[in-house]
Parts: sequence; structure tokens; C-alpha cells
Amino acid sequence: MSGKNVRVLQQLFSPSVQHTLDLIGIFVFAISGALLAVRKNFDVFGIAVLAEVTALGGGLFRDLIIGAVPPAAFTDLGYFLTPLLAALLVFFLHPHVERIQVGVNVFDAAGLGLFCVAGTTKAYEYGLGLTQSATLGLATAVGGGVLRDVLANEVPSLLRWDRDLYAVPAIVGATMVVLCIRFDMLSPVTSALAVVTAFVLRLLAMRFHWRAPRAWNRRSTVREE
Amino acid sequence: MSGKNVRVLQQLFSPSVQHTLDLIGIFVFAISGALLAVRKNFDVFGIAVLAEVTALGGGLFRDLIIGAVPPAAFTDLGYFLTPLLAALLVFFLHPHVERIQVGVNVFDAAGLGLFCVAGTTKAYEYGLGLTQSATLGLATAVGGGVLRDVLANEVPSLLRWDRDLYAVPAIVGATMVVLCIRFDMLSPVTSALAVVTAFVLRLLAMRFHWRAPRAWNRRSTVREE
Amino acid sequence: MSGKNVRVLQQLFSPSVQHTLDLIGIFVFAISGALLAVRKNFDVFGIAVLAEVTALGGGLFRDLIIGAVPPAAFTDLGYFLTPLLAALLVFFLHPHVERIQVGVNVFDAAGLGLFCVAGTTKAYEYGLGLTQSATLGLATAVGGGVLRDVLANEVPSLLRWDRDLYAVPAIVGATMVVLCIRFDMLSPVTSALAVVTAFVLRLLAMRFHWRAPRAWNRRSTVREE
Repeated sequence: MSGKNVRVLQQLFSPSVQHTLDLIGIFVFAISGALLAVRKNFDVFGIAVLAEVTALGGGLFRDLIIGAVPPAAFTDLGYFLTPLLAALLVFFLHPHVERIQVGVNVFDAAGLGLFCVAGTTKAYEYGLGLTQSATLGLATAVGGGVLRDVLANEVPSLLRWDRDLYAVPAIVGATMVVLCIRFDMLSPVTSALAVVTAFVLRLLAMRFHWRAPRAWNRRSTVREE
Repeated sequence: MSGKNVRVLQQLFSPSVQHTLDLIGIFVFAISGALLAVRKNFDVFGIAVLAEVTALGGGLFRDLIIGAVPPAAFTDLGYFLTPLLAALLVFFLHPHVERIQVGVNVFDAAGLGLFCVAGTTKAYEYGLGLTQSATLGLATAVGGGVLRDVLANEVPSLLRWDRDLYAVPAIVGATMVVLCIRFDMLSPVTSALAVVTAFVLRLLAMRFHWRAPRAWNRRSTVREE
Repeated sequence: MSGKNVRVLQQLFSPSVQHTLDLIGIFVFAISGALLAVRKNFDVFGIAVLAEVTALGGGLFRDLIIGAVPPAAFTDLGYFLTPLLAALLVFFLHPHVERIQVGVNVFDAAGLGLFCVAGTTKAYEYGLGLTQSATLGLATAVGGGVLRDVLANEVPSLLRWDRDLYAVPAIVGATMVVLCIRFDMLSPVTSALAVVTAFVLRLLAMRFHWRAPRAWNRRSTVREE
């Protein structure tokens, strides 16, 4: 890890701003995990577990890969308590939360944008190459949702062709970050631009039901689901 | 990690007593994994894999999080061989093991108590905060069972509302340990008390079918399972 | 980790030969992941994710266990790009790839042999005991396939009794390596012999449908699948 990288990148946002953004992303991902838990008939502990895993799973994976142990999820008490708060809210208010599903989706898109940028930046700070940093940024953004679906015994919605684009906005955001790093243009402004781009792309994908293609000349050997 | 913590906590049990307790916990968890493998029609290797994963998965996760690599599961040969022994027993004797399912459940409850206390203690020794240590103690106790169910392609029984309380006894045991640490009262006696409390709570939960509530005003969007 | 071990073992193959063998193993495993993704109707990103996970998951697990972070999957660009190439090939040509399923199976058997030997060797280089090194070699060889099946929401084919032997060839190959280490006979020739033995055993298992036994006196509590 180059000391210079760490110094330059840590000035991106003030620590308190970055921490607040992280907590917002964690909160909205936790809401999505808790809602799935309610739909699957899990009890209150199942709701809390799925909220924690969805919110912290992606960052946990990233921190294990880059060797940042113990991971932030286990050193920052706020990271641990925020998903519990989200689980409590869903536990008591979930019909109301369901009713504002559109709002939840918007926040989830914001979490996607925040996490892909923060994950890419942290991976690069720990010495990974540019391509690998972007990959780990993507994994940070989508990893929690994949773990959520695996624990709920469902096919990860990330992988399904019949869901609106989710990976592409995160890939675009992470790619913008590494291009900025490559050309020495990373600043709070360009980082914020990457977050907003991923966020807006995800909103557009939901609005217009953008989907990714399946294999060419596909002759499915399983029934369409 | 504070050197003082490590010194104080290592005197809790004599190493050989702690090791024997660990092996007992590993053995009973391995039995539960092997039994599920038989029910799922897995072959002898599937039985061995599920026994290993159930017995060692929780501790493996804890050791990766706290940076204790290679994890105990890969340095202590007894930890590795004990699940194989359990798998062999189930392979040859499983109708008999099934018949004493009550006995298996009692041992599994003992494993739950032992692992939540040992996991919390080890996490604190490695420098985690009190809340995080208790969380990791809980993860040590229930992590293997969750991995077992994920590999068997079932919804983790930890998360299901229609199963008797499993997380709560481990949470109580882990909380007792961190309270003892906080008030400087951790000793072999108080540790044993935490193990026994978690153990008895789990037995009572099974005896009286205690369950945790689902979300308030739940309007399920999936069929009851 | 003993410096002597590292020195001796690194001379097994020349680095470039070892790297080429690794890339071949990664490529064929990625093909098997991508093919399953097509069968499950995943979109192009799902195909890429499953290719990456299948190809790199086993080695990633090994590297996390032995503390080799960041794992090779995130430091070697070739390791990351090879699965994407496999995913692209399957995306455009999958009916043709399906048609040569026999060829794919032969390559997958080659990957199994290469990975169990390379995984065992690397684990031993990092200071694990002989039994644990062989176990981790087995995990390296089969871990990616297990992750592939978990993400695709299927029972891991490794565990199913109705699939031809997969674990046994890898166990034999890994055991040969640790026996060679034990008796100071590890050389490029004996390593290659272990690879070929695992490879041929897997081919024979597929050719003659060798299967492992299920539990004795099994009275299944689930329907035969």
C-alpha cells in the first residue's frame, strides 16, 4: 500500500461526512433485508439477522479481501446498531414501509451509488490495482443483497434476467472512480458525481425496466420462471 | 489487543478443560450436520462435508473476522477429526442416532451454550468491543447451523418463526459474558454460569415451544410454509 | 511458515508453467459456472458473476484461510479476466459449448486435478500441517463449484449421492501430494503424477458412473430426488 494513495484519498470527504453517508447506505440496505425477512415469514431475530447481513455483508467481504481486520462492521458500533434500528422500524411499521416501496427503492439506489464509490476507494487505498478496486467496489455494493437472497433461499435477484439492471449502475460508478484515480482527478466533486451517476442510472433502470440480455441463441433447458 | 485482556481471560479455564469442551461442542454440532445430510440423501462425502461445516463454520467465521489465521479449525487436528468421527457414527448408526433425537437436541443445546461463551471470550481477547464480542459469540454459536442449512438448500432454521427459540439463549449467554467482563467479574464460575444459562434456556425453549414474534400487522405476501 | 518449505516447494514448477496451469484450471471452471448460469436463465452479468465465482471461489477461500491477503484472485489480473473470457464465449456460443459437454467435462476434470495439487502445495507453503493442507487442497478444488451451486440456489452437486464421484479424485490427488512432502519426494514429476491421477480417476468415475454410498440402513425421510 502506497502511503501517498492513502493520504490523498482520505481527504476526499471529511470523515464525518463519509461516516454519515455510510450510515445512510447501511440503513437503506438494512430496510431491504428486513422487508424480505417479513415476506419470508421470519421471526424478529430473522428480521434482524437479514437486516445486518444485507447492510454489512458487502463491506465485510471487501474488508476480508483487503485484510482490513477486524472489519469496519465489527469496530464501528454505529454500523452494527443502524441495521437493528431498521429492523425495528420494519418490525413495527412494515405495512407502512411496504406502502412506500417506491421510496425504499430510491434509497436503495442511493445506497448502491454510495457503496460502489466508497468500496472502490477503500480497496484502492489498501493497495489493490485499478481493475480489482472497481471489482471490489461492485462487490461491496451488491454483496449484501446476494447474501440476503442466499440466506432467504432465493435465487439472487442480482443474477436474474427478469430484474431491472442493478450491477451496471454500480459498475459505471466504480469505473468512474478508477478513471478519476488513473487521471489524478479524484476529488469530492468527482466522487460525488460518480455516486450520483450510479444513483440516477439505477433510477432510470427501474423507471424504464432496463434489462440485460441473456445468452444468444439460448435454448433453455429449464422452464421459464 | 490489550495484553492484559489476553492474560486475564486465558486463565478462565485450564487449556485442556477448554479444549475438551470445544471438542464436545464440535462433536454435537457435527452430529446435527450429518443427520441433515442423511435426510437429504447425501452420500458419505456429503455427510462428512456437512458435519465439518456445521461443526467448524461458526468458529471459522469468527477467526476470519478477528484475524486469527489460520483459523483454529485448520491448526488443531482434533477439531478436524472430531466431525469425521461424528460423520462415521451417523453413517453406520443413523437410525439409532435418529431414535435418540432428544439426546442429540440436548447435546446441541450444550454446544450452543459452550460456543456462545467461548466465541465471545475469544473475540474480546482479540480486541473487539463488548457489543461486537457478544455479536461474534452469537455468530460462533449459530453460524455453523446457518451454513449447514444453506449448503443443504434449506431456509436456515435460525431464521424461521416456526422453530423454537435458538438465538435468544445464545444472546443471553454472550451478554452475560460481556457484562461479567465489563464489571470485572469474569471467572471460571461466572463463565460456567453463562454456559449453563444458555443451555437451560434452550432446553426450556424446546420443552415449551417458545417462539419469537413475527412482524406486527403482518400481511404475508407468501403462502404460510 | 518455514522458509525452507517455501524455497523447496516453489521450485516445483517454473512460475510461468504454474501460472499457465492455473489459468487453464480457472478457465474450465469458469465455463462450468457460465453454463449453469445460462441454464438458470441468468442475464449476461449473472453469467459473468457465476463464471468468476466458480473459477476463483475455491482459491479465494484457501487464501483467506491461510492469510494470503489480498488473495491471488485480486492481485493477478489474468485470474480476473480469464473467467470473463469464458463467460463471453459461453454467452455467444453456448449451444456449441453445450454440444461439446464431454469436452467440458474432461477439462473440468483437469481443473480438479490441477487445483487440488496447487491448493495443497500452497497451503503447506503457508505453514499448515499435512492433513490440513490436503483438506484445503480439496476445498480449493471443489469450493468454487459449491459456491456456484449455492448462488444458483441448487443443492451442491458435490454433496448429492446421484452424481459421479467428484471429491474422491481430489482427495486422492491431495493425499499423494502430502505423502510426497512427508517422504521428501515432492518434485515436478510426482506433482504431475498427482494431477494426472486425480484427472484420470475423475474421468473413470464419469465413464463408469462410480458413486459413493449413502448411509447404511437409510430410511429416507424425504422423497427420492
